[in-house]
Amino acid sequence: MTVASSPSILPHFDRVRRQSVRLCEPLTAEDYTVQPAPDVSPPKWHLGHSTWFFENFILADHLPGYRRFDERLNWFFNSYYESQGPRILRSQRGNMTRPGLEVILEYRRHVDTAMRKLLQEGNETVHTLTELGLHHEQQHQELLLTDIKYILGSNPLYPIYQPREAESPPPVAHRFLPVSGGRYSIGHAGGGFCWDNELSRHDVLLQDFGIGSRLVTNGEYLAFIRDGGYSRFELWQMEGIEWARTLEVKAPLYWYPEGDAWRQYTLNGGLVDIDPDLPVTHVSWYEADAYVRWAGARLPTEFEWEVACRQYEPQPDRDGNWVERGSYHPTAARHADDHQLLGHCWEWTNSAYLPYPRYPRPEGALGEYNGKFMVNQMVLRGGSCATPLSHIRPTYRNFFQTDKRWQFTGIRLATDR
Amino acid sequence: MTVASSPSILPHFDRVRRQSVRLCEPLTAEDYTVQPAPDVSPPKWHLGHSTWFFENFILADHLPGYRRFDERLNWFFNSYYESQGPRILRSQRGNMTRPGLEVILEYRRHVDTAMRKLLQEGNETVHTLTELGLHHEQQHQELLLTDIKYILGSNPLYPIYQPREAESPPPVAHRFLPVSGGRYSIGHAGGGFCWDNELSRHDVLLQDFGIGSRLVTNGEYLAFIRDGGYSRFELWQMEGIEWARTLEVKAPLYWYPEGDAWRQYTLNGGLVDIDPDLPVTHVSWYEADAYVRWAGARLPTEFEWEVACRQYEPQPDRDGNWVERGSYHPTAARHADDHQLLGHCWEWTNSAYLPYPRYPRPEGALGEYNGKFMVNQMVLRGGSCATPLSHIRPTYRNFFQTDKRWQFTGIRLATDR
Amino acid sequence: MTVASSPSILPHFDRVRRQSVRLCEPLTAEDYTVQPAPDVSPPKWHLGHSTWFFENFILADHLPGYRRFDERLNWFFNSYYESQGPRILRSQRGNMTRPGLEVILEYRRHVDTAMRKLLQEGNETVHTLTELGLHHEQQHQELLLTDIKYILGSNPLYPIYQPREAESPPPVAHRFLPVSGGRYSIGHAGGGFCWDNELSRHDVLLQDFGIGSRLVTNGEYLAFIRDGGYSRFELWQMEGIEWARTLEVKAPLYWYPEGDAWRQYTLNGGLVDIDPDLPVTHVSWYEADAYVRWAGARLPTEFEWEVACRQYEPQPDRDGNWVERGSYHPTAARHADDHQLLGHCWEWTNSAYLPYPRYPRPEGALGEYNGKFMVNQMVLRGGSCATPLSHIRPTYRNFFQTDKRWQFTGIRLATDR
Amino acid sequence: MTVASSPSILPHFDRVRRQSVRLCEPLTAEDYTVQPAPDVSPPKWHLGHSTWFFENFILADHLPGYRRFDERLNWFFNSYYESQGPRILRSQRGNMTRPGLEVILEYRRHVDTAMRKLLQEGNETVHTLTELGLHHEQQHQELLLTDIKYILGSNPLYPIYQPREAESPPPVAHRFLPVSGGRYSIGHAGGGFCWDNELSRHDVLLQDFGIGSRLVTNGEYLAFIRDGGYSRFELWQMEGIEWARTLEVKAPLYWYPEGDAWRQYTLNGGLVDIDPDLPVTHVSWYEADAYVRWAGARLPTEFEWEVACRQYEPQPDRDGNWVERGSYHPTAARHADDHQLLGHCWEWTNSAYLPYPRYPRPEGALGEYNGKFMVNQMVLRGGSCATPLSHIRPTYRNFFQTDKRWQFTGIRLATDR
Repeated sequence: MTVASSPSILPHFDRVRRQSVRLCEPLTAEDYTVQPAPDVSPPKWHLGHSTWFFENFILADHLPGYRRFDERLNWFFNSYYESQGPRILRSQRGNMTRPGLEVILEYRRHVDTAMRKLLQEGNETVHTLTELGLHHEQQHQELLLTDIKYILGSNPLYPIYQPREAESPPPVAHRFLPVSGGRYSIGHAGGGFCWDNELSRHDVLLQDFGIGSRLVTNGEYLAFIRDGGYSRFELWQMEGIEWARTLEVKAPLYWYPEGDAWRQYTLNGGLVDIDPDLPVTHVSWYEADAYVRWAGARLPTEFEWEVACRQYEPQPDRDGNWVERGSYHPTAARHADDHQLLGHCWEWTNSAYLPYPRYPRPEGALGEYNGKFMVNQMVLRGGSCATPLSHIRPTYRNFFQTDKRWQFTGIRLATDR
Repeated sequence: MTVASSPSILPHFDRVRRQSVRLCEPLTAEDYTVQPAPDVSPPKWHLGHSTWFFENFILADHLPGYRRFDERLNWFFNSYYESQGPRILRSQRGNMTRPGLEVILEYRRHVDTAMRKLLQEGNETVHTLTELGLHHEQQHQELLLTDIKYILGSNPLYPIYQPREAESPPPVAHRFLPVSGGRYSIGHAGGGFCWDNELSRHDVLLQDFGIGSRLVTNGEYLAFIRDGGYSRFELWQMEGIEWARTLEVKAPLYWYPEGDAWRQYTLNGGLVDIDPDLPVTHVSWYEADAYVRWAGARLPTEFEWEVACRQYEPQPDRDGNWVERGSYHPTAARHADDHQLLGHCWEWTNSAYLPYPRYPRPEGALGEYNGKFMVNQMVLRGGSCATPLSHIRPTYRNFFQTDKRWQFTGIRLATDR
Repeated sequence: MTVASSPSILPHFDRVRRQSVRLCEPLTAEDYTVQPAPDVSPPKWHLGHSTWFFENFILADHLPGYRRFDERLNWFFNSYYESQGPRILRSQRGNMTRPGLEVILEYRRHVDTAMRKLLQEGNETVHTLTELGLHHEQQHQELLLTDIKYILGSNPLYPIYQPREAESPPPVAHRFLPVSGGRYSIGHAGGGFCWDNELSRHDVLLQDFGIGSRLVTNGEYLAFIRDGGYSRFELWQMEGIEWARTLEVKAPLYWYPEGDAWRQYTLNGGLVDIDPDLPVTHVSWYEADAYVRWAGARLPTEFEWEVACRQYEPQPDRDGNWVERGSYHPTAARHADDHQLLGHCWEWTNSAYLPYPRYPRPEGALGEYNGKFMVNQMVLRGGSCATPLSHIRPTYRNFFQTDKRWQFTGIRLATDR
Repeated sequence: MTVASSPSILPHFDRVRRQSVRLCEPLTAEDYTVQPAPDVSPPKWHLGHSTWFFENFILADHLPGYRRFDERLNWFFNSYYESQGPRILRSQRGNMTRPGLEVILEYRRHVDTAMRKLLQEGNETVHTLTELGLHHEQQHQELLLTDIKYILGSNPLYPIYQPREAESPPPVAHRFLPVSGGRYSIGHAGGGFCWDNELSRHDVLLQDFGIGSRLVTNGEYLAFIRDGGYSRFELWQMEGIEWARTLEVKAPLYWYPEGDAWRQYTLNGGLVDIDPDLPVTHVSWYEADAYVRWAGARLPTEFEWEVACRQYEPQPDRDGNWVERGSYHPTAARHADDHQLLGHCWEWTNSAYLPYPRYPRPEGALGEYNGKFMVNQMVLRGGSCATPLSHIRPTYRNFFQTDKRWQFTGIRLATDR
């Protein structure tokens, strides 16, 4: 992790910490508690776990005389750090009604007070670890939104999270933007924070390729469905079509059939009609892979994507307010050269999540953060509407298993030239 | 179902309905919501389901102009009545954060108001159905307590439900009370309410037998554990020892090891020492069956139990306050002839749950209540500390699968003579 | 077990032992080996296991100087006797290509030679144990046939086991035969062999009832299917309809759809048309229970069945040749008073498999034979076409779990009067 | 697929076809039939499936008037070609006792006769497809050996497949051989047969690295075990340690504990002592990945491996006889520069199995051969003792899921320089 020196992290600390609580404000106490799928953690748990990170990895070691809020919480809020002692089974998170929300909010205040005190000391290591903790918390803010969507979106009442008028974008034609082959540098170049897995900047060779000028839309994906895409085995990886058959998958997550049509759950509108001009999202890698084959194209590699992003994407300019991807973003008025490469969807690539050359798995607990998941996952690039702005950069490597769909995942075509 | 004529059911209606809400008062909003095991329903769900019963089976048919509170709730609160339309999967109950507690309490008030209006009309059918609905609700009151115990008792904080000082009873010697063989009548004789499965009173032949003068105690059960009872296959049914091996069962539910000893979760005390003189409870039929073989005895049949109960049990005399079975009941001071046959534990019998001769499975939804579970379950008799007083009678047939332990289930010995 | 004194068991020993080998003669080496379902054992295994029974329980203890054929075989051929040491997992039986058939046949000869020598000594205990071993082997002869049917009947080539012309019986009207209520003795009365679970003859009280004059036919069962029987929940136990839904059961085992019709695999004919006048077979208890409810009747209890059998069934008179139940038995020409109570199908009853009063579970390995399965199974009575003649008697209690269908199981109606 | 022109394929055809049958000769009929794990196919099935390949993809289209041996065999011997119609479930292969071995051998003769006739015509397409079919059959010859090892090696009698005296090699020190970074060409260069997935030769950039001078030995792996390697989470991918925990993996496949030591099943010796100087084999990718981290090294990528192989490996020179990898190969006397890169073990790499740039998934059935498995598998390089000689080349890409161990899989270290 590379961390820029910053004398005044305190306001940033307060802002990030407040944002987690703010994201949960529309929830009821019940919404905070449940875990309707193994990957979905209770919002209450995210609030506790991101706090435990500061207590366990910073305060316990660096604030003399710090008294833990409650020793027993370690047991609840350790996610998967084997080095940090025993923990409840992940599948049990949604059964833990205690500690309750009030206790967890008090826990946050307890830790925040101690952190503020510690941060005033200006210790360098503390500063670095705090920046890490804040990025960690921001990742959980994205999970908060996707987990809230799952909790509300699988409830037959389809409750709205934050009402907001959807605007429909005009249709935009798709074309392939050319990128020339050659030798390119990949990975984080220094300057600003990045994760360990972006480091070890190194060169790769690329061949000429074309990259889609925008994301695949709902309307295009609907054509795939109507063309029998889900049952045409020649379009799929064998593992993919078995996945679709076993789970009877026939459309993206949150698409619900209504008569002959499909409707879609969104956080801002509840159950709404599908807008054919918005990007399709909540698809698995299996579906993305089958779709691109149907479309006569392929997925980009993560290297192609990173090079194309640097070449074609203007600087992100967003106000930081959270907006469902399925809604047209009014403040970032779409113009001809918005290729949606950053901040619209996590885009599946055809690259497996593997270490870059000379990637050093960090020692200790930090080595468990990104380094112990480097098998059987695929890389996603770009960042979604749920991603905190400071996490959106061309080198960021997100990764999920090939069947995961509850993130805001989308599809971009690539082609040989 | 036999129902006694009663002109003034209204006060009873109010009392029962209030009791369900009262039982939940110590809970937090989170406690109301979760389902930590498939058999355990969220307390919130019990409150809604028992209300839906009145709306769906009484108000909809008998109160002209009745407007359902919200049509969509049918989907949530139908438990298993196939005749009453689609419903969410049982396993999904704990993921339903909406409708929230406030909405459900409002639902209860809506239905109670309408029921009160309807009950003033004095319609006979309504009266009968209401009595049925109240008994149904009382069954769910028992489930409320056992489900609350599971929710709290599987949380590592071991929260106390209702604090209450435990009193320890003096040890009482065990002996076998003699019952003479002969022809006995079994089943409900008329007078007062009973369930359909208690009807069809009929005669059976019994041989001489002895019945335990009290329930098996924690101390006795501990001796079984220490004697290697859980791994001595000759004591078990094959299915039972496979169950214990697969799930690594080594003690009753809610017993937690601490060093070389066992502690126990109770609703009134949290995690407490095990009192050797209290009845053992939260055992499966498999464990009960193995224990009695170890003790050189056997389980009674449900017929033996019913006959013994009539012969030896004095009238119940309890104040109706709920007390954890694991606590000594201070208001019902134990005397020499208290054989604990009623109101202490549900006692496993060696009788399968089958229809009595000429049992008529009722038509329609009511036939789904007791009649569609008559296979692969065993009968329990006696009633527990969680059972509403009016449900405690010698003919009541409770039934569960042989692996179930979250009810207050205990063991009584029987023997041939 | 009651065993009649018999001076000349040797010819009987030879006959029974030969019969097991004879039953397998139509098989290929491959047929001998596989286990296409957990309940189905490889024929080779049956040949070895029944031999191991004699070696392990008789020769090892009673023939001085007996040398085991191969110590390692204990590991393969112990079925479930925990008291007899470790054994391969039941699910692994079908993966054991060694010991091969030739070795097992040699094992049989080795044991038979030793047994013949031992039997000439006329020891009483040996005689008793041998008779037990032969009944055990005959039970495995029935399993051999049902397991062979499963092995061949789930192969898309539908190979014929033993070709035999099917004769079609004339249709026979169904009526209810009356049985008067009263006090009846149940269980084995002495004279001839019986199993431990038939003992403890005792009296029961029965009410007036009617018993079907014949088994339910394929044609009748087809009407149930066509009437939507498999999806009408009100006909089923809840556990039953969930079983049928989960496994997508729509007809008896071995019925295969062909266009709009059903065909059926039989051992004597391969895939053949269904004869509407033959008894339906290969149904689970769940299906039997749903069918009788559809037919407006009920299943008999095992006690009703035993009493009716004594009253209505003439002595069995069969030539002992094995004939598929689905074929009309030519040598036992059907006459007006053949009620098919013995030797046609195992008939599901509505009695759980439980010990009779004062049943003593035998000590040691024998106690594992019948006594450790007395939970969550239902009793079947009557004996099938696959049952050795000497096992067909009114008191014989067969038992299986409620989902089992690979035995020749059928349905008889009963009714209240 | 690139296929070299070859006028006289007929002798080669006969040789390859004969070799499949020859490999099975030590088997009993039972050994031919079973499927003790989902990945393991019955040897009988391999013989049928490789024959079906010729019938279905060559004879049916190219030999006028060809009469299929038996239409129904299609159903059995289609492996996973969705384009070629329905087929039995893979998990059912081991339950298919028919067609029997004799029928399958007759099937082989039928097809061979027709193929010989067809091959004399000298048709180019036929020639190409035949070469493909023979390579396909040779892949199944490798599977035959690994499947036979699984069938015999999980039988407690540990039967020997082909007895052969093991010779123990002398210990050889391990060092890292240097490879310089730079631009290298990867993939098949033309000349001789290769699979589609080796094509699209392209350049990659490598950094300086070191590659192990030999495979990791049993003795080295034993040190990892004794050092607690299987329970030290920091050495593993999270998915890997969960795999090991769930399945209780504590050693390579075919290692069996005996007291404090381990013994190993081999095809040539049955259960034998472990030779510390032979390469460890039958490890999963998870285990290989944990081992190299323990050893302070890493796995090579498939690109590094291919470059190192070209640099360091002398030409293969083997007599083509099959020898268990766990035995020292007497005819290929080990010399100082034998780095075991080809023909000893399939070596796990840290490269996911993904298409090379511009890889064209072939149309039709052939596209199902390699192209539909390109997700969640890892590449293995080198070839094992079970690999036909003509399949051993530096560009061959084998691929398996990360938990697979029944192939002859081993470990080679790599390191950054």
